[in-house]
Amino acid sequence: MTKLIEGNAVIGQSGGPTAVINQSMVGVVQGLRAKGAGRPGHPIKKILGMRHAVSGLVKGDLIDLTDLSHDRLERLARTPSAGLGSTRDKPDQAYCQRIFEACEKHDVRYFFYIGGNDSSDTCRIVNELSAARGYELRCFHVPKTVDNDLVGSDHTPGFPSAARFVATACMADFLDNISLPGIKINVVMGRHAGFLTAASAMARRSDRYEGSTDGPQLVYVPEVPFDTERFVQDVAEIYDAKGRCHIAVSEGIGDKDGNSIGATLIQNAQTDAHGNVQLSGSGALGDALSNLLKEKLTPTGGTKLRVRADTFGYIQRCWPDASPVDMAEARGSGRFAAALAMSGDVDGSVAIERVSPIGGDQPYAARFKRIELSAVAAKTRHMPAEFIKGHNDVSPLFLDYCRPLVGPLPTFERF
Amino acid sequence: MTKLIEGNAVIGQSGGPTAVINQSMVGVVQGLRAKGAGRPGHPIKKILGMRHAVSGLVKGDLIDLTDLSHDRLERLARTPSAGLGSTRDKPDQAYCQRIFEACEKHDVRYFFYIGGNDSSDTCRIVNELSAARGYELRCFHVPKTVDNDLVGSDHTPGFPSAARFVATACMADFLDNISLPGIKINVVMGRHAGFLTAASAMARRSDRYEGSTDGPQLVYVPEVPFDTERFVQDVAEIYDAKGRCHIAVSEGIGDKDGNSIGATLIQNAQTDAHGNVQLSGSGALGDALSNLLKEKLTPTGGTKLRVRADTFGYIQRCWPDASPVDMAEARGSGRFAAALAMSGDVDGSVAIERVSPIGGDQPYAARFKRIELSAVAAKTRHMPAEFIKGHNDVSPLFLDYCRPLVGPLPTFERF
Repeated sequence: MTKLIEGNAVIGQSGGPTAVINQSMVGVVQGLRAKGAGRPGHPIKKILGMRHAVSGLVKGDLIDLTDLSHDRLERLARTPSAGLGSTRDKPDQAYCQRIFEACEKHDVRYFFYIGGNDSSDTCRIVNELSAARGYELRCFHVPKTVDNDLVGSDHTPGFPSAARFVATACMADFLDNISLPGIKINVVMGRHAGFLTAASAMARRSDRYEGSTDGPQLVYVPEVPFDTERFVQDVAEIYDAKGRCHIAVSEGIGDKDGNSIGATLIQNAQTDAHGNVQLSGSGALGDALSNLLKEKLTPTGGTKLRVRADTFGYIQRCWPDASPVDMAEARGSGRFAAALAMSGDVDGSVAIERVSPIGGDQPYAARFKRIELSAVAAKTRHMPAEFIKGHNDVSPLFLDYCRPLVGPLPTFERF
Repeated sequence: MTKLIEGNAVIGQSGGPTAVINQSMVGVVQGLRAKGAGRPGHPIKKILGMRHAVSGLVKGDLIDLTDLSHDRLERLARTPSAGLGSTRDKPDQAYCQRIFEACEKHDVRYFFYIGGNDSSDTCRIVNELSAARGYELRCFHVPKTVDNDLVGSDHTPGFPSAARFVATACMADFLDNISLPGIKINVVMGRHAGFLTAASAMARRSDRYEGSTDGPQLVYVPEVPFDTERFVQDVAEIYDAKGRCHIAVSEGIGDKDGNSIGATLIQNAQTDAHGNVQLSGSGALGDALSNLLKEKLTPTGGTKLRVRADTFGYIQRCWPDASPVDMAEARGSGRFAAALAMSGDVDGSVAIERVSPIGGDQPYAARFKRIELSAVAAKTRHMPAEFIKGHNDVSPLFLDYCRPLVGPLPTFERF
């Protein structure tokens, strides 16, 4: 075994928070401490936390996590959102140079960054800079995103809990929709990948997935080009048959030329440091689709149809009812990264591989593995074609994929 | 004891559904059955449910609930939204005449209507019609509303569970806000009464209510005239001090002349049968306030402020994590109405009286009582002045009032 280099470890949390990102942070701390980090004589002296990710690191705004009590760690793990604070900064080469210099200054030799594909890219650049300077810095990316859009993994910590929220919300909201019939649109997070919107279909009664008429009857993901005329027609068909319609639509839907439907409709569009238009934190897409349906489907001279739109918003990523599988995997991926970092001169990203078949009678099982930072950095995974059914639904395979991740949902009774 | 008149009982659920409105329906069924209704020889022959409230009753669309199994009733009770279906119809005198005729036709002598102040008014009119015709019809209103705006009660079934959702959502969303600082607006249901918006303040750490700097730092209820300039100034003060600001605002806020801020901003405004402008199911108010803050608070030539708005929408009234007190009281108010209806020739509405002092060390205790239908019908209760602090906060007394109703909230850990 390679001799561990002496120095400190640092942990950061970046991008949109999740219900389990603190599980991963605690997993890294516990993984390091389990091997003796922080104890007298151990090469790893301190375990530091970056306040607001790399923006805190470059300013030297660090918290000492080395001796946090077990109880406090466990409470933190069960607390949603990023306890250390997060950032939307996307470091370029010059910024990464400052990050590297901060690592040198604070004697950091183990760098853990919990985040999505942008965070993985930050790890990769910092890692390359340190290699070029001959400074040994072990860089690990710990995956996190509610969008489930990281390549190389079956799924990503954060997604199952957000999916659980979306499924539960759609279950309850569908009961509202059949109680007071009308057309209801729910707008779900997911800029490029439709996994979270697709999870809305878990709201259908589990014994009746095939041919279920439960809502949402229509599911629109960004992977399928959105055609407004076809959308109006889809809704009209369901509404004519049932007198109501329940719809889940991704904030990220775009037309056949790739133009975002939301971005073209949103007044006063705001872009973040990554050049992304703000889609969340606004009800504009839902309201625009709602107005479209009222206009197109109201008979001439008739009473306006009852159409409502809700945008689930930020609570879908931080709702404090995390999926049991997600809690365990988020924690485990942090521990796995810590163990890898102490196992030799390696860097990488933690991936989750499902080892049980999707569907069938075998219990769900998964394992962690190391993949290269470059394999995941700045890449986006989309829903595979076999998870999508037609232009407005998900496949039974997707529901089988999602079920063990989301965990047990409430059971309801109806007349 | 008065001899019970022979005939059937009918139960309806009206207006916006809640997480516990089925508890009340099950309470009525169980209350009637506990006294023998439906058994051979008992004067009450059948217990019927109206599909979609009075709109189903007048069409003869009824379900027989007399022999529903205990298990099914218990599962229904724990299912959110109105299991029988609801309606937005607000019956006028002519409609109430048709309701009365449907009661005659179906030999209904016991009329239970679960709803808000409009439902109470329907009960009152139907009751007067039956009295004028000399047809004995015992009419009972069972209270239900997330708005908590019924007069004569300490609080109303449905409110505590919705308040629990709002408080939990604000707890989680505040952690999101401190993780990625910015200005966050959450729009909460409540057309005329601010109780539900006020419940957002339960999100502050319970050990630090007084002088807490936890979000929401600003709470705007409809009882206080909303001044947009003062709003901008309030936000600027918090933002300048903290670099972030967390805001809860009622959908029902209006200016000093009583003009709804939401209604004036919403494009394509839709009104329901009660003449109310649609405020829920749209993100327009949040988006308008968000745009206002971006415009007013961004320094000349500066980067636009990060401002986000979420509108909690329909899930706040049906979220399947009901408050324990609310479940028990919703069930109990149904049982109480059933017992009253079989106790003699009375009609009325069920009210909840708190018998323990607000705050202090005594455990929460309440009792049901009968009040006249005319005492609650078509009236709206507002937040009392002692529950409001200044123009943008709630008082400690309101938090003491709300705490036992909402039930235990999660505890989170922070750095």
